[in-house]
Amino acid sequence: MDRSEQRNRYYNELAGSSLHRLAAISDGIFAVSMTLLVLGLAVPTASEVRTGMEGDLARLLRDLLPATVTYVMSFLTLGIFWVGQQTQLSQVERANRNYTWIHLGFLLSVTLVPFSTQLLARFHWSRIALIVYWLNILVMGTALLLGSEYASRARLFPKEQGRMIIQLVRRRVLGAQLLYLVAMLLCIFDTHWSIALIVAIQLNFALAPPIPLLRRL
Amino acid sequence: MDRSEQRNRYYNELAGSSLHRLAAISDGIFAVSMTLLVLGLAVPTASEVRTGMEGDLARLLRDLLPATVTYVMSFLTLGIFWVGQQTQLSQVERANRNYTWIHLGFLLSVTLVPFSTQLLARFHWSRIALIVYWLNILVMGTALLLGSEYASRARLFPKEQGRMIIQLVRRRVLGAQLLYLVAMLLCIFDTHWSIALIVAIQLNFALAPPIPLLRRL
Amino acid sequence: MDRSEQRNRYYNELAGSSLHRLAAISDGIFAVSMTLLVLGLAVPTASEVRTGMEGDLARLLRDLLPATVTYVMSFLTLGIFWVGQQTQLSQVERANRNYTWIHLGFLLSVTLVPFSTQLLARFHWSRIALIVYWLNILVMGTALLLGSEYASRARLFPKEQGRMIIQLVRRRVLGAQLLYLVAMLLCIFDTHWSIALIVAIQLNFALAPPIPLLRRL
Amino acid sequence: MDRSEQRNRYYNELAGSSLHRLAAISDGIFAVSMTLLVLGLAVPTASEVRTGMEGDLARLLRDLLPATVTYVMSFLTLGIFWVGQQTQLSQVERANRNYTWIHLGFLLSVTLVPFSTQLLARFHWSRIALIVYWLNILVMGTALLLGSEYASRARLFPKEQGRMIIQLVRRRVLGAQLLYLVAMLLCIFDTHWSIALIVAIQLNFALAPPIPLLRRL
Repeated sequence: MDRSEQRNRYYNELAGSSLHRLAAISDGIFAVSMTLLVLGLAVPTASEVRTGMEGDLARLLRDLLPATVTYVMSFLTLGIFWVGQQTQLSQVERANRNYTWIHLGFLLSVTLVPFSTQLLARFHWSRIALIVYWLNILVMGTALLLGSEYASRARLFPKEQGRMIIQLVRRRVLGAQLLYLVAMLLCIFDTHWSIALIVAIQLNFALAPPIPLLRRL
Repeated sequence: MDRSEQRNRYYNELAGSSLHRLAAISDGIFAVSMTLLVLGLAVPTASEVRTGMEGDLARLLRDLLPATVTYVMSFLTLGIFWVGQQTQLSQVERANRNYTWIHLGFLLSVTLVPFSTQLLARFHWSRIALIVYWLNILVMGTALLLGSEYASRARLFPKEQGRMIIQLVRRRVLGAQLLYLVAMLLCIFDTHWSIALIVAIQLNFALAPPIPLLRRL
Repeated sequence: MDRSEQRNRYYNELAGSSLHRLAAISDGIFAVSMTLLVLGLAVPTASEVRTGMEGDLARLLRDLLPATVTYVMSFLTLGIFWVGQQTQLSQVERANRNYTWIHLGFLLSVTLVPFSTQLLARFHWSRIALIVYWLNILVMGTALLLGSEYASRARLFPKEQGRMIIQLVRRRVLGAQLLYLVAMLLCIFDTHWSIALIVAIQLNFALAPPIPLLRRL
Repeated sequence: MDRSEQRNRYYNELAGSSLHRLAAISDGIFAVSMTLLVLGLAVPTASEVRTGMEGDLARLLRDLLPATVTYVMSFLTLGIFWVGQQTQLSQVERANRNYTWIHLGFLLSVTLVPFSTQLLARFHWSRIALIVYWLNILVMGTALLLGSEYASRARLFPKEQGRMIIQLVRRRVLGAQLLYLVAMLLCIFDTHWSIALIVAIQLNFALAPPIPLLRRL
């Protein structure tokens, strides 16, 4: 190992080692993505509504219903993944360059949610739009699992709980992704069934109702 | 209780337990929502103003007056709820999964403020737009109260002050929501009276003037 | 003083008392405002440029020059006020409800900068646009000074340095605002002279060149 | 040195001295810039797609391919510079006014990335657009190097590692910028080759593959 390589090793040890800043940029990206979702709710323009005609406005707001459903669905999705990532970051004892980059990959998929949400809101009848949305969830789940797998292998988790954590994460991510897969496949019949099931899954994760069957996943 | 359930219990204890990150994503979402309000102030386009004609620009800026009023009103609204949430988070001793999700619900309603603000700015004559705006404030208040009620029941507040805090929060939220309700009902006569009263209420909360009657609420 | 008033006093002491969160929402609002400035640099649309014609694109980018100048000017402006607020917050020992609301007023004027910047970029020949921009800077400076004055009166500064700090802040804010006033008045002749002087002032604050005359302000 | 100068010296020592807040605003600006990139992926509008015609949507999504490539490229670029800045900030022991302003200059170039990315996405055949993008990377790299050089000269690094750090940073920044320069020059033949090489360079930095030749840079 020559000197230049030694220096690089030193640099790589320092690079991306701040768990605090990884959490900070994650919170920032989640916050902006969650708030940008609202841009998908296009406020009716003044030219579409005759002044004083409440009926015009009521009708236009009713047209926003699909966009509102996907809005709530995506906010829940981002909330679920934010809680998931927060839990993971609170468990690792330190970060490193590779771990940071896995999370940046995860965050890349997070920033895509406003796009795939607006696509699905606009084309809620489209299987392609639904599959794009499902792929986005799949990539987020995969990246989060990858983070845990790497943390486990690189011994970033505390020694005692490491094994238990990784088994738990695998079970939860695979269980959730299985449910999303089923929801996606429902689009063979109708994309609206898929959307309804995804909303139900997200509500289940958010509300954590005391139904043993669902909790076990 | 089988092993998988034990693991889940362990996971749920860790999940959403970071008060620091809950505060961080809240600050992020409030910051973005407050700044996105400015997009409601549409800058006049170059084609609307003849070069050198200050009169054209002056007239267009005057047209922005309703949007400016709702802008300031919504900034104050978000400021009031940010201070309220900050106060609550500074009082709880720890967070948990359920508490985190109540706050995510609260933050969902926060991200809707730029939408309901722009709706009201554009259709300030409309009772529907006003009721949408009022519902937004109602949901924010309800979610914040729910957070305190849950924190009280789940013993997240310090033991000694817990009872006093929850009584105080109930009084303040109910008092404020009563005022907002009155303001909303004024739209039976004219929506502009409602807007004027909401602005007055928000200024009262922001400036906290030394008028005993108002402070008592 | 009856019991309800006692409770309110207790609440007001807790409300807005977190310096850490005040700093966090400030950083968030500054970060979003600074980044939203880029939306003022409208990327030429595909329909304006014939494929393969570099000349078309070059001409359109040249048209973005005024927007680029106001962009850099406003980024510097926000940077100067961010450093100013950071300095103030690093000096106070604690916050309270009133102090927090003065800063929220300050942040309201910060979120207006993307608006007034885009207005000036589009109508750089207009005295009205220039005065709106100047008013924005005036309000930011006034709010920042007000924060220091209040902190001084409410004894939020450390006892020993309190007097020195407030004298220093007054001098700096008044000195800077005097320069901005001169720049604004130059619009009697030509708004472009005003813009040039504001840019020069901001560069002076940012670069802090070793010219005694300027440093003394 | 008269009294007013003494006061200024005191003020300048306090101004911009908070490393924590410099990190916070940096995380905020990176988070917003990374998320704003998604606005470059324009969701097809409802009028472009006949209801039920998946083919229409598929074709429009295929048209988004260049925008998707530049999106991923720019996310990686921002990730690389975020890791670079984080590493630098974790090494300095304190900040000061000048150091803060060098970083604000760096952040100015960061906020320009969504602009130069959208420009390149729209005009991927254009050498001008490519050179604008390359200049953006060049300015970011230069500002980051400048920060390290200043930190080294102003003794902000810890005494023992200071020399080693600055040599390492110089090598890395110059090596990377050399690669970007080569990529830019490829536009003499075809801008798409330039884009391909930049993507390859960013992937190399992100994935840090175990190829000695590349790691040595």
